[in-house]
Amino acid sequence: MTRVCFRLQVRPELLDEYLARHSPVRAEMLAEIARAGRRNYTLFLGEGGMLVGYYETDDDAAAQAYLAASPVAAAWEAEMSRYFVGLDGRPDQAATPLTEVFHLEDQLASRGEIPTPATDNESSSS
Amino acid sequence: MTRVCFRLQVRPELLDEYLARHSPVRAEMLAEIARAGRRNYTLFLGEGGMLVGYYETDDDAAAQAYLAASPVAAAWEAEMSRYFVGLDGRPDQAATPLTEVFHLEDQLASRGEIPTPATDNESSSS
Repeated sequence: MTRVCFRLQVRPELLDEYLARHSPVRAEMLAEIARAGRRNYTLFLGEGGMLVGYYETDDDAAAQAYLAASPVAAAWEAEMSRYFVGLDGRPDQAATPLTEVFHLEDQLASRGEIPTPATDNESSSS
Repeated sequence: MTRVCFRLQVRPELLDEYLARHSPVRAEMLAEIARAGRRNYTLFLGEGGMLVGYYETDDDAAAQAYLAASPVAAAWEAEMSRYFVGLDGRPDQAATPLTEVFHLEDQLASRGEIPTPATDNESSSS
């Protein structure tokens, strides 16, 4: 499983409109993202229109290829492109990728340890 | 379940050292994060030392309180503070939070739909 994180910059003057377009995203695009194999897909908004995206997938290349070939995604991304600063191409393809440098469970697993929340310990001992 | 995303800025001149400190994070701090109830905790590095953190928790206030009271976390965060730009306090408490504005499965669930990856459909029909 791969975790993917990317960054985009929303034009501040179009931020309200951008948020309205995501509340909710239209059904056919939601379904297409899921069919591409992206899971737990979340967008977070920071100061000044900084947008961070996060998703998990078993095969990011296959998910990207699925969306690249999708007329539904092409139409959606064409509509989205005007909301972003400094893009050259479809927003989903031109976003700036980040690099994973730490993952809790991977590091615990490499030590042979299984995460145990304190709250679970407490409830199981009571 | 809450998804939390935050941003920090690593000092570019200390980036290699910061990464070395996370490869891996020392065992007692890994265990403490897990005991606090943070799951799927991931750090992503972007251009210029921009660091994005992501985790999931059932009770973020409780997780924050657990780490605030933890001597292990206090020692770790005190060591980490020198790696970041513009912080006033412990890095885990002074990081800039982002706001969730979209989540795929939540929007699908609100429509009564269950995500179905195309790859699963194809394999089940073959």
